[in-house]
Amino acid sequence: MTVHTATESTSFVPGEAGVTLEPLRRAREVERWDASADVVIIGAGAAGASAAIEARKLGASVLMLERATDCGGSTALSGGIMYFGGGTEIQSACGFSDDVDEMYKYLLAASGPNPDAAKVRLYCERSLEHFAWCKEQGLRFKPSFYAKKTTEPPGEDGLLFSGNENVWPFNEIAKPAPRGHKPCTIGSAGRVIMDALLARSSELGARVETDTRVTGLVVDDERRVVGVIARQHHGTIAIRARRGVVLCAGGFIMNRALLAQHAPKLLNVNIQIGNPGDDGAGILLGLSAGGYAIGMGEGFVSVPFYPPSKLVFGVIVNAQGQRFINEDAYHGRTGEFILRQTRGAAYLILDEPHFARPLAGMPLAAAGETLEELERELHLPEGSLVHSLDFYNEHARRGEDPLFHKAQAYLQALDRGPYAALDLSVSRALVPGFTMGGLDTLPSGEVLAHDHRVVRGLYAAGRNTCGLPRSAAGYSSGMSIGCATFFGRLAGVSAACAEPAP
Amino acid sequence: MTVHTATESTSFVPGEAGVTLEPLRRAREVERWDASADVVIIGAGAAGASAAIEARKLGASVLMLERATDCGGSTALSGGIMYFGGGTEIQSACGFSDDVDEMYKYLLAASGPNPDAAKVRLYCERSLEHFAWCKEQGLRFKPSFYAKKTTEPPGEDGLLFSGNENVWPFNEIAKPAPRGHKPCTIGSAGRVIMDALLARSSELGARVETDTRVTGLVVDDERRVVGVIARQHHGTIAIRARRGVVLCAGGFIMNRALLAQHAPKLLNVNIQIGNPGDDGAGILLGLSAGGYAIGMGEGFVSVPFYPPSKLVFGVIVNAQGQRFINEDAYHGRTGEFILRQTRGAAYLILDEPHFARPLAGMPLAAAGETLEELERELHLPEGSLVHSLDFYNEHARRGEDPLFHKAQAYLQALDRGPYAALDLSVSRALVPGFTMGGLDTLPSGEVLAHDHRVVRGLYAAGRNTCGLPRSAAGYSSGMSIGCATFFGRLAGVSAACAEPAP
Repeated sequence: MTVHTATESTSFVPGEAGVTLEPLRRAREVERWDASADVVIIGAGAAGASAAIEARKLGASVLMLERATDCGGSTALSGGIMYFGGGTEIQSACGFSDDVDEMYKYLLAASGPNPDAAKVRLYCERSLEHFAWCKEQGLRFKPSFYAKKTTEPPGEDGLLFSGNENVWPFNEIAKPAPRGHKPCTIGSAGRVIMDALLARSSELGARVETDTRVTGLVVDDERRVVGVIARQHHGTIAIRARRGVVLCAGGFIMNRALLAQHAPKLLNVNIQIGNPGDDGAGILLGLSAGGYAIGMGEGFVSVPFYPPSKLVFGVIVNAQGQRFINEDAYHGRTGEFILRQTRGAAYLILDEPHFARPLAGMPLAAAGETLEELERELHLPEGSLVHSLDFYNEHARRGEDPLFHKAQAYLQALDRGPYAALDLSVSRALVPGFTMGGLDTLPSGEVLAHDHRVVRGLYAAGRNTCGLPRSAAGYSSGMSIGCATFFGRLAGVSAACAEPAP
Repeated sequence: MTVHTATESTSFVPGEAGVTLEPLRRAREVERWDASADVVIIGAGAAGASAAIEARKLGASVLMLERATDCGGSTALSGGIMYFGGGTEIQSACGFSDDVDEMYKYLLAASGPNPDAAKVRLYCERSLEHFAWCKEQGLRFKPSFYAKKTTEPPGEDGLLFSGNENVWPFNEIAKPAPRGHKPCTIGSAGRVIMDALLARSSELGARVETDTRVTGLVVDDERRVVGVIARQHHGTIAIRARRGVVLCAGGFIMNRALLAQHAPKLLNVNIQIGNPGDDGAGILLGLSAGGYAIGMGEGFVSVPFYPPSKLVFGVIVNAQGQRFINEDAYHGRTGEFILRQTRGAAYLILDEPHFARPLAGMPLAAAGETLEELERELHLPEGSLVHSLDFYNEHARRGEDPLFHKAQAYLQALDRGPYAALDLSVSRALVPGFTMGGLDTLPSGEVLAHDHRVVRGLYAAGRNTCGLPRSAAGYSSGMSIGCATFFGRLAGVSAACAEPAP
């Protein structure tokens, strides 16, 4: 049980080969428990650390098992935006009003065709409390608003529109408010979040074992989960969980076999948002104990053609030369819509005054002195692009977009050549993504079986679950970390409060 | 074990409430086996009857359990088209050449982003053999080709294009051949198929118990499936399966709770293609024994705006007044694409010479003397519909469709008013559909667990599995019954050949 310097992950190759796990083991077949804790948490990312903090605060002994050498999970690698609303002090300081009902209406519409209304409601009602909790853990948010269209604020600004709140059709569903909150730091804040949560869980006495990969679960004769089997450098160990095991081991964007089975659209992703451990092992462990996975086909597929926000003035067309989305939509929504077009082809059309190079470096598809020339260069049907731009320009000059209701702020005629087209096709563009499907859980974190019975002794949070975000077309930055920390807390409480296994 | 006249289905209400099943039971907890057979088949539809025939031919005793009062399942209610290719005598007699490789290329492309290449290959390579087998069971096919665009040939014709074989983009992927084969009868042939298969299985000595709903599976101490628990009018019985249990109990289009969890797009379906037993019980039984469900989000969602085939001359536009599909695509593909449009809205635009009433009775959305008037009546952005029709007409007069490559045979200018628009919006049109997701299986019918281990003693076929068809956008009529009968046979063979449980 010492921490080894060699990392297990060097011998683990994510991808086609999938994940090797052991079948469920009976407790009476375990010869010796090498360690034990009230609550054993698998994965030391945002969900796991939040669960650890809450479980420790309730007096439970906590052991976190992390397969990598460092803790932090995918949150540590992320931009660190967190989704809060209902009128946080940051929203108010920046001049935005928000309330629980508007937040709920938005998230319900945005969480996909199959939202978990109970989770959404709870998340909204407790958003201010959760914001306060995050501050208690040491996170600071600067009360300044970043107004430009971006994937992530470059500076310290603490608030931004991080999704589709203020774009059509969502702006007709709920009163828009920016809800993306970024802890105060220059650039990405994921590490800041994880440093705070891990420091706190450590202060509270939660133990962590790194370089420890859980390969199987242990159940008693009543099929209650009572422990885990894990591999460390020197061999295999068995760890007893007296009150519960909490799965917080991330999604499965690194596992191409699982993607092919469940979410083939995510095979188009060429930048996996995650860490090598996001191979679905946690979800599979849950299944091995009788859990049930839902929403497995859904995931985030983005084509981040902005920043700079100037590019949002451009017009996106498909292989028919037609527009198909308001270009001011969140980049995840745009990515999802691009995937639905013929061959996943899409081009961002720009004129000279609106040209810029995207930060994500999308390739140039064509250039031309006139739109006619650009159309030919792109091999679009003759007249198709010219018509789309004529129609767009005519209305843009009046500040209107009758087709897709793009915001007036980004409506200007593109009529000053030369023209260029950036390639936003999924086969050529940079396409980051991650999975959203996972174990079905109650808001409490209790894992459900296919028949809605609770799998006793087993809890889950974060991307091991099908949580709040369930639709690429409605995703906002911050929903994943917001969901992981909030429901991680609840799962930690549930496990800590469970009756000890006999 | 007598057949009762009261049907259990009167007390079963499909829908929100879901399905009530029992947890897995241990064989040693079963006090008494009320019946036994080598092979116990759950569901007496196309998959079940095909499995029964093959198992009996190998000498295994067979007991089929059917929850309804009559056998036949959803196949008996269907049009009865079966997907064969590779050069059947019917294809040849009608003047079409086909081969295994072209069939394979087509089905691989059409079976969705995640085809099971092994199943597709086997299905194509053995298609002529399977066609001969169906004839052996008494099915007759008339060597005449039905050339019009339809959902189902009205007369006795035995061959038709039943999918997207001859439409773009599939006609660029594989050499088109019609592969929809309909057993000889006027109109729907589903009952003809089931009468033949059930008569044959009965002749061979397969027993059937109707009004018998399986509510749970029984496993031995090694977790091999060795029996089932079922409800009949007078109570609960236990049936021992010496060699195997074969799940052939259909999809889950009748179970709104499961649809919401896994395939929310199918909540748009307002005509469930299936029978009341299609509530997913077979899939859930498989899960209870450690099976694993894949492709659960996928299903068939059709907007059958033809026949009459004359309507294919029409132009389909979305809420932006834009075309988004070649109108000669198979109606299932069209339905899938309509779902992807803003609010699922779509209109079929017709001029006076091309107007007709769809057999499926789609509502009239608007009419106008001119296209401008029609555009206003439909509340489409000004100029949008007019442009789309102008562009279409200009090219149609030259026999071209540069946007979506609709077949020349259906290209004529729509320029003789008055004009009408039929409402193909998913909220207003007739939208039939069914599910495609189900248990992961080997081509042999062996049910797989999440870790690709075989669930011993358990087999599945038909819509209880994720089989050949895995994409609404590529579905052809006949793939379901083709898949159910073919893989039903293989599952029957596998179960019959299994070593008996100790």
